[in-house]
This record gives sequence, C-alpha cells and structure tokens, in this order.
Amino acid sequence: MSLINDRLLRALRRQPVDRTPIWIMRQAGRYLSEYRRTRARAGSFLALCQNPELACEVTLQPLQRFNLDAAIIFSDILTIPDAMGLGLRFTDGEGPSFERPVRGRRDIDRLGVPDPESDLGYVGEAIRITVDALGDRVPLIGFSGSPWTLAAYMVEGKSGTDFRTVKGMAFEQPADMHRLLEILTDSVAACLMAQRDAGASALMLFDTWGGILSRHHFLEFSLGYMERIVARLNRADDPAAVPIILFTKGGGSWLEAMAATGCQALGLDWTEDLGHARQRVGERVALQGNMDPAILEASPRRIREEVEVLLERYGKGTGHVFNLGHGITPGVDPAHVAALVEAVHELSPVFHR
Amino acid sequence: MSLINDRLLRALRRQPVDRTPIWIMRQAGRYLSEYRRTRARAGSFLALCQNPELACEVTLQPLQRFNLDAAIIFSDILTIPDAMGLGLRFTDGEGPSFERPVRGRRDIDRLGVPDPESDLGYVGEAIRITVDALGDRVPLIGFSGSPWTLAAYMVEGKSGTDFRTVKGMAFEQPADMHRLLEILTDSVAACLMAQRDAGASALMLFDTWGGILSRHHFLEFSLGYMERIVARLNRADDPAAVPIILFTKGGGSWLEAMAATGCQALGLDWTEDLGHARQRVGERVALQGNMDPAILEASPRRIREEVEVLLERYGKGTGHVFNLGHGITPGVDPAHVAALVEAVHELSPVFHR
Repeated sequence: MSLINDRLLRALRRQPVDRTPIWIMRQAGRYLSEYRRTRARAGSFLALCQNPELACEVTLQPLQRFNLDAAIIFSDILTIPDAMGLGLRFTDGEGPSFERPVRGRRDIDRLGVPDPESDLGYVGEAIRITVDALGDRVPLIGFSGSPWTLAAYMVEGKSGTDFRTVKGMAFEQPADMHRLLEILTDSVAACLMAQRDAGASALMLFDTWGGILSRHHFLEFSLGYMERIVARLNRADDPAAVPIILFTKGGGSWLEAMAATGCQALGLDWTEDLGHARQRVGERVALQGNMDPAILEASPRRIREEVEVLLERYGKGTGHVFNLGHGITPGVDPAHVAALVEAVHELSPVFHR
Repeated sequence: MSLINDRLLRALRRQPVDRTPIWIMRQAGRYLSEYRRTRARAGSFLALCQNPELACEVTLQPLQRFNLDAAIIFSDILTIPDAMGLGLRFTDGEGPSFERPVRGRRDIDRLGVPDPESDLGYVGEAIRITVDALGDRVPLIGFSGSPWTLAAYMVEGKSGTDFRTVKGMAFEQPADMHRLLEILTDSVAACLMAQRDAGASALMLFDTWGGILSRHHFLEFSLGYMERIVARLNRADDPAAVPIILFTKGGGSWLEAMAATGCQALGLDWTEDLGHARQRVGERVALQGNMDPAILEASPRRIREEVEVLLERYGKGTGHVFNLGHGITPGVDPAHVAALVEAVHELSPVFHR
C-alpha cells in the first residue's frame, strides 16, 4: 500500500521531502486526557499494552489532535522480559520492576526466546489493527529495547538504580552477560521481525542505557548486539526490509560507530548538536530528534524559536526527522505540542527548497 | 615552596613526568571508616565542612592510606549558596536541599556576593592548615561548583529533580537567569581566588549539571560564565596563577569549546573515550579522569585490566591525570582503591619513557 504521507520513510532514506517530518517520542501518553481515560478503562499500564484494541486506540489519539507524520505502536520495551517469565509490574511513582530479576548464570540458563505469536501475540495484533485503522495516512513505527537496555532492567530488577548490579555482572562475569545478551538479541530480532511482518514500516531500537557505559564497554556490550539485529533485519536482498533507527541516549560520542552498523537513521538526545552530528554522520544516516523535552514547558513563542534553531542547525536538505531528544513529559500542555507541530510545518519547507 | 611530588602540577601543564599522577574524586569520603568516624564526631556533613580542623583531618585521611599525587580540600560546592543565605540542609538518603530556594527576580535581587573571609572563612582556614600539614609532599586542589550548576541547585531547591524549574527560568526568563549567573560568577571567582591565596595550587570547577543542556544552551548558560572565571583567575601577567581544571559531566561533545576557554585541563566522565578526547583537544589542554567508578566494585584483577585499557587509550606522553569519571561511591572496598593506585604506579611509567 502506498502512503499519502510518506515523509517519514523518505526522510529516513534521505530522499527529498517538501517539509521536515515530525513525530514525538511517547506521543501516545499521559499528557493527553483521552489517554488517561483509556488507561483507566484498561485498569493498568500493562493491561493497556496487552489489549490490542485499546493499544490501537491510544496509538491513534495523538494523530487525531496533531498533524503528525507517523504513529508509533503503543507498547513497552519490557514486554519482552515479561514474556520471558520475569513478572513485570508497574508501580505508580516507582516505575517498572520485575518479580524475578536475573541474578546469575542459573537464571540466564532458564531463559528462553519468546515466541512472537504465542508469547507476544498482542503486539502483532495491535499493529495489524492499527495499520488497518491508519489506512494509507501515515506509517506506523514498531520498536524494541536494545539487548543491553533490556539486560540492564532484567539484572537490576527495577528502575532508578545506579546500575552497579548489571555493571558488576558485565565486568566480573562477562561470559554470563554475553550469554544473556545473545538470548536477548534473538528475542529482539524475532520481535522486530514480527512487528515488521504485522505491518510496521519503520523500526526503532531504544538503547536507553547504552550511555551509562564507557566507549569500549558500549561497543562490547551494547553496539555489537544492535549491529547483529540490524544485519538480520536489513539484509540487502530482503524485499521486506524497512528503515531502522538506533537511539542510544547519551550516545552522542559514538555516532560514527553507530552509523557503521548499517542502520538507516540515528536518534539523538538533546545534548548532541544536530549540525555537528550531521557533519559527522549525515552522509551515511538520517538523524532523528534532538529537541530538549523541557522546551515544551516553555511558551509557544519560545518553542517556535527553538524549532527555528534546530532547523537551522541541521540546515538545508533531507535526512532530518523532527522529534524530541527523549519522551514527552506527562505535565506538558497539549497546546504546546500543537505549537511545536505547527512551527515545524511552517518553518521547515524553506529548508527543503 | 617547591613540592617533592609535583606530578599533578606538571601533568596539568603537560610537562614530562615519570609516571601518570592519580587522585580520586571524593577521595575523602564515606568509603573510608576513618572518614565516617570523623563525620560522626562533627555531627553532620555541613558541620564537617565548616570545621577547619576536621575538614583538614578528612582531607589527609586518603593520603595516609594510598600513595596519591594530590589532596583536594574537603568541602562542598553548596557552601557558596549557603553563604548567600539559602539555608543549606543535608538529609540522609535525600541529598542536599535549600530552605529558601531562588524562585524569581525578587529572590535574585536579594542575593549578594559572599565575602570569602567573613562568610566563607572556614574554607580558607581549612586550606591554610591543610597546606601546612601537607608540607612539601603533594599539592592541594581547591574547587567550586560552576555558576550554572550552583544556579540549578538554587532554583530547583533540592537534588533528584528533572530540572524543569531551572530550565523553565532559563528558557522563559533568560534575563533573570543571566542576572543570577552573573552574581554566581562573581561569587565563584572570589571564592576560588581566596582558595588560591590560602595555598591551593590547582583549582577545579565542577559543572555537574552542564550536561543536561543542549549545546547552544550550554554555551549560553554554563560555558560563557566558566570562561569569565578562567579569564579572571588566569591572567597571563598574574604570577600567582595556578592550573584550572573544568569538568562538565556529560560534556564530552563540547570539549573543543571547553578547551578554548583558556583553562589548563578538562575533566572527563567515563563516557568519552580518552584517546579520542586527546586527539581532539590534547594539544591545548591536559585531560583528567575517565574511569567508570563502577569498575572499583569489580575485582582487583579487573581494576588492573581497566587501568591498562585507559593508559593505552591515552597513549604515550604527559598530559593525563588518572582519576575516576565521577566521585567514588560509598560502598567501595578501600582495598580496591589500593589496587587502582598500585596499578597506575606500576603500569604507567612505560608510557612516559
């Protein structure tokens, strides 16, 4: 099916576009009252992820409000470890935790690769009905956590830690850590392939915790496994291949290494300068993101000024997907999001002439 | 007075040394039982900072255990805002907070530049007696927070926030924020000058929260003010000038701009690669730091391996001061610190032949 609005896919492939496409990380989220209502109906965050009809509903909500260039399937990166039997729980105010964290080799040896259909079928189903509902309007993005990021959650057992436990395993039992990362690599690749087969037309790998590592540890424990996943999904002879975006929060120093994986685009948090990033890797990959999410708390006038700054930093031509540098925060006024989208619509065409 | 061990000062000036000097951020700290005993005697963390004899005592403690190449005066970056009347409190497990945070222009207009002698005399006094006690053994480092980092604490009012309040002020009331940063620049410069006059022979600016900003906001709100401080302290015709180290946590992308301030050295957290950093700015400045503090939780064998990796990443020649990329964590076994220091002593001479 050819899309009416294929700006995202064209920009990810660095093909010409009439204006810079925009979507927003966590665009289906708590800052929207309709999201909060649907979540209340679902009963819990996890129940919302696991209910394909409701996941579809919240995925579409931001597109009804804002003229966004992509939808991203509503889900959570921790559904994979949950499907592996770790017992995912979300506690209000404390974030996610696991009932059975991975503590050592015995726990790792018990882990199996989840089956995308029988163990995570709700994700594929949500994608199928969402693609159906979207019709030919905009593309749907699928996603997963990176193996390292999932391992960090699985070994720490909860969020908000200083990562001493997972680093301890990586530094002291590297063979165990690599075994865990191999299982996760198989799991993530299978899950992304299933999302693609269900209709996702771009895929994003969230390496939320790659940036807590030194460069040589990042290459060993995170990037190497993301590279394997890209290679499996992105074989040159595969007619079903879709663009892949890698996003390591705090990974601005390593863009060259990340671009060399064969992915089509890199996500940037807000600390890396967009112009410098383009100079470094813009010949190889598209760039997505980069606005400080805190800007959305400022006035529409300031939001518009920052949009102009970022568009100028990237400069003329395709290859930029406008986005925040991290997920939108729950307290943002939706009118500010409207101002952001409008500013990108109005200010970006001149950069594509 | 000429020092017996001047490796730190020589390395900061990129002069030849026989081996790489080492000191450790927060080396006088909770991981040492003798520190915990002195702190208990003082009654509180703040009372320890404000008692020159006890501050001297804990400053010297790590040097009695380990063959370190520098002492750093025991103090806290928040003593300056405390001296400005904000009412600093330390609560166990929650970190520092202020009774009277800065909320807007009226609060800013009430702030004065503290007098280093009458308001912060305990810092100068602690330095004088510590330099006296150290004799000609090793240099003593003085320090301060950067204006932006102090402003972040003063406006947020406590640690552990997402910095929305201080960013809100910077983005929406930039004139107010710049006024606050000017007052802090005068305060930090006066405080560092007093530390130097009291006997500190190197100075370090801790920009703990510069890395939460986008590059253009970092230049505007943090680096510009650090540059002014360096210029005031480091006038070419000033015979009392001492080496200045700038450390922005998460600032690896901006090393070139930081090196252009005229400082003598940059601190590196552990996410920036030491070899790449040297390629980028090693002709202009020395580099300090870079080991992931979590490595100290691993075995002495692994610690030694990581020392070797870092020494090799920097390569041959002077200009590297071995250190962690952030403060040592309270749970570290002092025997692991001994292993770190020993490894640097044994493995680094070959890089200086």
